[in-house]
Amino acid sequence: MSFSPLTQRLIESLTCLPGVGPKSAQRMALHLLDRDRVGAQKLADTLQLAIDKIGRCQRCRNFSEAPVCHTCSQMSRDPGLLCVVETPADVIAIDQSGSFRGFYFLLLGHLSPIDGIGPEEIGADLLDKRLAEGEVTELVIATGTTVEGEATAHYLSEMARRHGVVASRIAHGVPMGGDLEYVDSNTLTLALQGRRVIE
Amino acid sequence: MSFSPLTQRLIESLTCLPGVGPKSAQRMALHLLDRDRVGAQKLADTLQLAIDKIGRCQRCRNFSEAPVCHTCSQMSRDPGLLCVVETPADVIAIDQSGSFRGFYFLLLGHLSPIDGIGPEEIGADLLDKRLAEGEVTELVIATGTTVEGEATAHYLSEMARRHGVVASRIAHGVPMGGDLEYVDSNTLTLALQGRRVIE
Repeated sequence: MSFSPLTQRLIESLTCLPGVGPKSAQRMALHLLDRDRVGAQKLADTLQLAIDKIGRCQRCRNFSEAPVCHTCSQMSRDPGLLCVVETPADVIAIDQSGSFRGFYFLLLGHLSPIDGIGPEEIGADLLDKRLAEGEVTELVIATGTTVEGEATAHYLSEMARRHGVVASRIAHGVPMGGDLEYVDSNTLTLALQGRRVIE
Repeated sequence: MSFSPLTQRLIESLTCLPGVGPKSAQRMALHLLDRDRVGAQKLADTLQLAIDKIGRCQRCRNFSEAPVCHTCSQMSRDPGLLCVVETPADVIAIDQSGSFRGFYFLLLGHLSPIDGIGPEEIGADLLDKRLAEGEVTELVIATGTTVEGEATAHYLSEMARRHGVVASRIAHGVPMGGDLEYVDSNTLTLALQGRRVIE
């Protein structure tokens, strides 16, 4: 005994979504079939359109349906500053902070030889060309604080050095409003290593 | 600053899924675009197929791409027993218990005048016709234990009575292996009210 074959197929297809297991997929499928066929239709259409149209921006590698994305087309940004991040979500986070007005470059991951992710996969060629153009004066490296993120940051800083570009790393430490007792020891280590003299 | 317009539309479309807010939808959209376009394509296709093909079984109202669903076509089932449940998931749960070999009828909800759900919405006409056929001898009512579920059970038992059909309600009480101290008091009340003499 189970759902009808097509319902079962819909449930299985929904498990391709991250964080969705068989039980959630079942709830989603029944919800869509029972109460939101309009939403389901819209989702099917948008998915198809997204698959067909969304590619990579030629400049920053972010998702874009245009050859060059909206952000890379903004002339008000400082062409001397290039921030390297891992994911599209990182771009949003940094831009929403309002404290960076340069351009972005997305690695879409980090160096991880074990997973077969080398310089080619993180777009090192494209970044190399970008730095060779000579417009960028500072490469702001905002990769993650994982071992892989740090290794990637090191690799990128070497690349910047070859082009005579200043490489900087965003600061890691105790978050604003963070109570010291609730901050993990790795973060505290970073905070202590990154301490500055008060002038 | 935000994602590209089409990426944004995909994120919004994904929030039609139950339990998926803007943050999860963003994670899902980026995952599909970045790492699982094959899964996304399969999901888009299956969604479209499901929207186009999946309707209601004419007998039990469960989701089915055929006019009469697989369960209602099984000749090995006892036509004298009809179990009334609220949702397709209830059918699966009861059938998987292996202790019911009759047919099912789905209300797809419960009577709830406040939400405008009356006898018509829960398929009372169809059930009335089914009981009038004369094959059903016992109507096993397995609606929820909510106030609405109980009211619906009462309504259905009255309908059964009119057709001279025995109406029964599944037992509610302490679950198997349930420690009394962790059982809520409403369940305990039901368990006490439903106590049986040990013979």
